[in-house]
Amino acid sequence: MSNSIEFFFDFSSPYGYLAAQEIDKLGEKHGRSVVWKPFLLGVTFKETGIPPLMQVPLKSEYSDHDLKRSARRLGVPFIWPDPFPFPSVAASRAFYWVEREKGADAAKALALALYFQAFGAGRDIATAEPVIQICDSLGHEGADEGVQDAAIKDKLKEVTGDALERKIFGSPFFFVDGEPFWGHDRIAYIDEWLAKGGW
Amino acid sequence: MSNSIEFFFDFSSPYGYLAAQEIDKLGEKHGRSVVWKPFLLGVTFKETGIPPLMQVPLKSEYSDHDLKRSARRLGVPFIWPDPFPFPSVAASRAFYWVEREKGADAAKALALALYFQAFGAGRDIATAEPVIQICDSLGHEGADEGVQDAAIKDKLKEVTGDALERKIFGSPFFFVDGEPFWGHDRIAYIDEWLAKGGW
Repeated sequence: MSNSIEFFFDFSSPYGYLAAQEIDKLGEKHGRSVVWKPFLLGVTFKETGIPPLMQVPLKSEYSDHDLKRSARRLGVPFIWPDPFPFPSVAASRAFYWVEREKGADAAKALALALYFQAFGAGRDIATAEPVIQICDSLGHEGADEGVQDAAIKDKLKEVTGDALERKIFGSPFFFVDGEPFWGHDRIAYIDEWLAKGGW
Repeated sequence: MSNSIEFFFDFSSPYGYLAAQEIDKLGEKHGRSVVWKPFLLGVTFKETGIPPLMQVPLKSEYSDHDLKRSARRLGVPFIWPDPFPFPSVAASRAFYWVEREKGADAAKALALALYFQAFGAGRDIATAEPVIQICDSLGHEGADEGVQDAAIKDKLKEVTGDALERKIFGSPFFFVDGEPFWGHDRIAYIDEWLAKGGW
């Protein structure tokens, strides 16, 4: 088994946006690479029957407050995208296409740009059109074909199937040496876990 | 407004058990007293429609793992009580009775003993009988009448009503200078919040 940190996230997950700002720095601190794995959380919601975060009374108000507070702490903007929630298929496929064509670092840069567009600027990445525009702006031409590529579609299905099999029910979700950690608020635990070598 | 930390919890909440081990130490570190406020989470679950933690597929398996890991980290045992979930009315009333009769410190010591019985020893605190026994063992005689005291019953209703009004939807739940924090995993945030005076 590789000793990389696995970072599962959905592009429509606001806490995934926050985790994306921090996780590579945390990996660096402990000499660990981080493998980013966007997946379709909606598929796992069907499995658990958990309603999306912002559809639960009281909890949604608190989460709005907590997200903005957590973003302030990281020094990044937070604005709800419109529409929300939104389908993350196009963004996820673009990620895997850029990863295949240009490598993991380029794909991470794209993921951060997509996340920023959605939760930093409050804009729409729900359809292929804005996703392709962001790819273009980063010099990744051909994304219109990339997001329709059969092998890329299969890759997203495969990762989402893997997420289900590994009992992932939320975003962000991390594995460190096989140990599962759920939620942006578990990043401090991961830090401690890596420092101590578990406990 | 007092500058105390308010600690809302339900006696049947396993993450409340963990938070109870830490919160007073955290308060001390920052020169803040902590006011413990057991309430009936079941009443707020009705409001939100959130199913109890351990009734959600996948999430319940993860939570079992996370609770045991979190208890190990704190150096306390973790055993599921039988039955679980259980009604926390008797335990909560005993808390407010001891608080009225003997003061806040005695009530906290009772709360820790009750929590330990449930989640440290895996035993039953669902009914008045074991709750009264624990009161007796701590030298608080008369708990059998105390848990039936009309003013004590009203006190628990009042705190639970206050929890609802303040939009508390889970346990543990904290307020620090009016700022809400939900979950055992937000204790690190509270620490940082108090150190920085917010952000």
